[in-house]
Amino acid sequence: MNEAIFVVNAGSSSIKFKLYRVVGRDVALLLGGALDGIGTRPRLQAKDEVGTVLVDRRFAPDEIAKAPEAQHAISEWVLPHLNDVELIGVGHRVVHGGPHYSHPERVNDEVLRTLESFIPLAPLHQLTNLDPIRVIAERRPDLPQVACFDTAFHRGHPEIADRFALPDELYEAGVRRYGFHGLSYEYVSGALRELAPDLARGRVVICHLGSGASACGLLDGRSQESTMGFTALDGLPMGTRCGSLDPGVVLHLIEQKGMSAAEVGHMLYHDSGLKGLSGLSSDMRELLASEVPAAALAVDYFTLHVAQAVAQLAVTLGGLDALVFTAGIGEHAPEIRARICARLGLLGVALDAAANAAGDTWIDAEGPGPHVLVIPTDEERMIALHTLRLLRPAA
Amino acid sequence: MNEAIFVVNAGSSSIKFKLYRVVGRDVALLLGGALDGIGTRPRLQAKDEVGTVLVDRRFAPDEIAKAPEAQHAISEWVLPHLNDVELIGVGHRVVHGGPHYSHPERVNDEVLRTLESFIPLAPLHQLTNLDPIRVIAERRPDLPQVACFDTAFHRGHPEIADRFALPDELYEAGVRRYGFHGLSYEYVSGALRELAPDLARGRVVICHLGSGASACGLLDGRSQESTMGFTALDGLPMGTRCGSLDPGVVLHLIEQKGMSAAEVGHMLYHDSGLKGLSGLSSDMRELLASEVPAAALAVDYFTLHVAQAVAQLAVTLGGLDALVFTAGIGEHAPEIRARICARLGLLGVALDAAANAAGDTWIDAEGPGPHVLVIPTDEERMIALHTLRLLRPAA
Repeated sequence: MNEAIFVVNAGSSSIKFKLYRVVGRDVALLLGGALDGIGTRPRLQAKDEVGTVLVDRRFAPDEIAKAPEAQHAISEWVLPHLNDVELIGVGHRVVHGGPHYSHPERVNDEVLRTLESFIPLAPLHQLTNLDPIRVIAERRPDLPQVACFDTAFHRGHPEIADRFALPDELYEAGVRRYGFHGLSYEYVSGALRELAPDLARGRVVICHLGSGASACGLLDGRSQESTMGFTALDGLPMGTRCGSLDPGVVLHLIEQKGMSAAEVGHMLYHDSGLKGLSGLSSDMRELLASEVPAAALAVDYFTLHVAQAVAQLAVTLGGLDALVFTAGIGEHAPEIRARICARLGLLGVALDAAANAAGDTWIDAEGPGPHVLVIPTDEERMIALHTLRLLRPAA
Repeated sequence: MNEAIFVVNAGSSSIKFKLYRVVGRDVALLLGGALDGIGTRPRLQAKDEVGTVLVDRRFAPDEIAKAPEAQHAISEWVLPHLNDVELIGVGHRVVHGGPHYSHPERVNDEVLRTLESFIPLAPLHQLTNLDPIRVIAERRPDLPQVACFDTAFHRGHPEIADRFALPDELYEAGVRRYGFHGLSYEYVSGALRELAPDLARGRVVICHLGSGASACGLLDGRSQESTMGFTALDGLPMGTRCGSLDPGVVLHLIEQKGMSAAEVGHMLYHDSGLKGLSGLSSDMRELLASEVPAAALAVDYFTLHVAQAVAQLAVTLGGLDALVFTAGIGEHAPEIRARICARLGLLGVALDAAANAAGDTWIDAEGPGPHVLVIPTDEERMIALHTLRLLRPAA
């Protein structure tokens, strides 16, 4: 019987899942889906590896009001699909591994308690990530579960990239530049190493541009600095998140405008970024299609800030050998890639317009400048690979 | 009788002042001094234009507890020195000119009320700046007073540089990227135009590096973007201020650590930056002389972030023709200039080590890279010139 790994990626209103067959040291997708609209319009959808719809089922909001119910529903649905395979483990995306976890970790009661202690570091996400682990542990206490952290990939970055200019007590108390999207950077960096091993050993900036967005500077495949800091708010402007913001604005809104910290937080996470700037949409496709001036401003703001972040990270790296775009916008918006690269002429970046428009992997023009690539990310596959490697270490 | 202009630069614990003689369309220093230690160890010192000490007097703390008493003491002391000149006006540094003042403004009751309405935008500084204006208006209601704003120079920057990625309502309510140190940038940019008019028409980044620090990108002498945003906290790390900080850290300290916004603000303004990172000192000279590892980290952090800001601004400008250092650290710390420039090789920056060590004006090595200059700033002189130009407009 084939061995298999189940992957769970739980967000605040949806749980994505995938089932992979183990093929030696690699994995192959068997099926994947999501339970979206938790608490509002719950809907379970899944397809097999060739895109055949396996399920499309709606629930009443109170049937699936929270993550634990959603995980139960997914587990129930997936059960018959596990008849043909032997499940060797479940891999989970966990946003926060705190200051210490620099690698995926097999979950036990002690690890779970440690991960719970990081809830104050990521109040919106950490609990949501841990719920499915608990649900599965109750159903199948024998089944190994592995937590894969969005922060782990950055834990090896130098101390200077780990700090804010704040008193040391705060650093010791965990106020650090954790950085996120680590599973994506690790996957894309690995894919770059397969494509171009020499280039992957050099100075690389990866732009993960999705509804969440950040950029990471790497030397020899290792994270040196990320634009995201302590929380997922910092750095690049995002669909609904503000990105870099004068901390004095937060103080002003609380002290002078009478907002609560919770109200400010809600605004910075949900009503800012492209949505706030455009007053229209958090979706880059809508903004690019719009003729409203504020939509154009939002797109300009995004591309300028991404280009600035690439230059900032190139300073840290001491130069730039390759620039890689990934995630929704990075993979599918040639117009955005073109506008970012047009601002980076001072670093020698030059695009091949036709290759960029065609969505090729290599999109830089011939010449001495940095290579520019588009590499699709796959966080769930990275989680499956981590889970496999941890549970079946190489001899 | 010679005409003269008195300049007042009031901070939270000291008032600096200078008296200038009007010489045609220019001004020449007659005397300058400061009343420091307001409310703690008040001390009035002044020297004439060749450095002869004119006064060095201490007061009891309760004699000079606040800015108004300090301004009275300065006015009393300076009075006999005004016998030989005709005072035509007083120029004041005022930190905040709000969204609208893009030029110096002659103060009347209405202007003063408008400037008071900006107090919530700069609670720590604006009131202190306005106190001396009121004291002088009471003593000499006939004497023209001119407010020169730290924000005015940046008011012409493009909208994209004026915004955060926040909802438009906040922008309309005044939450904008005002930028500061404008009087310094204007003075240095003018000095560059005298030195090298062609260069001043190009793409210039000025680094104002003092106990407060920011950088500004200019095209043809006009501000395009500044690293300081809504308050004087943002951007570069400073002596005691944090510079760029994930807004999520502010929310975390309030929501999870139980600090008040006022406590967080105090820490970010007074216990962060070089002081916070080093645990030792806010003074760059002490840090450079120290062998403590945390001091080295603080210096590295500072130079890295300045270099990153130069690259960020160069992206906005589409390239870099000249890099100019000014203010205390910028003018007097060749080691810091060298370490910043060493990180900017990717922009073609190359220093002439001997010229840099000697403190020459032109410090770049021969070659195709950007020019690098050291130009001393003089904010009080800029204020005197603005005051003269406003009160005696050219025919």
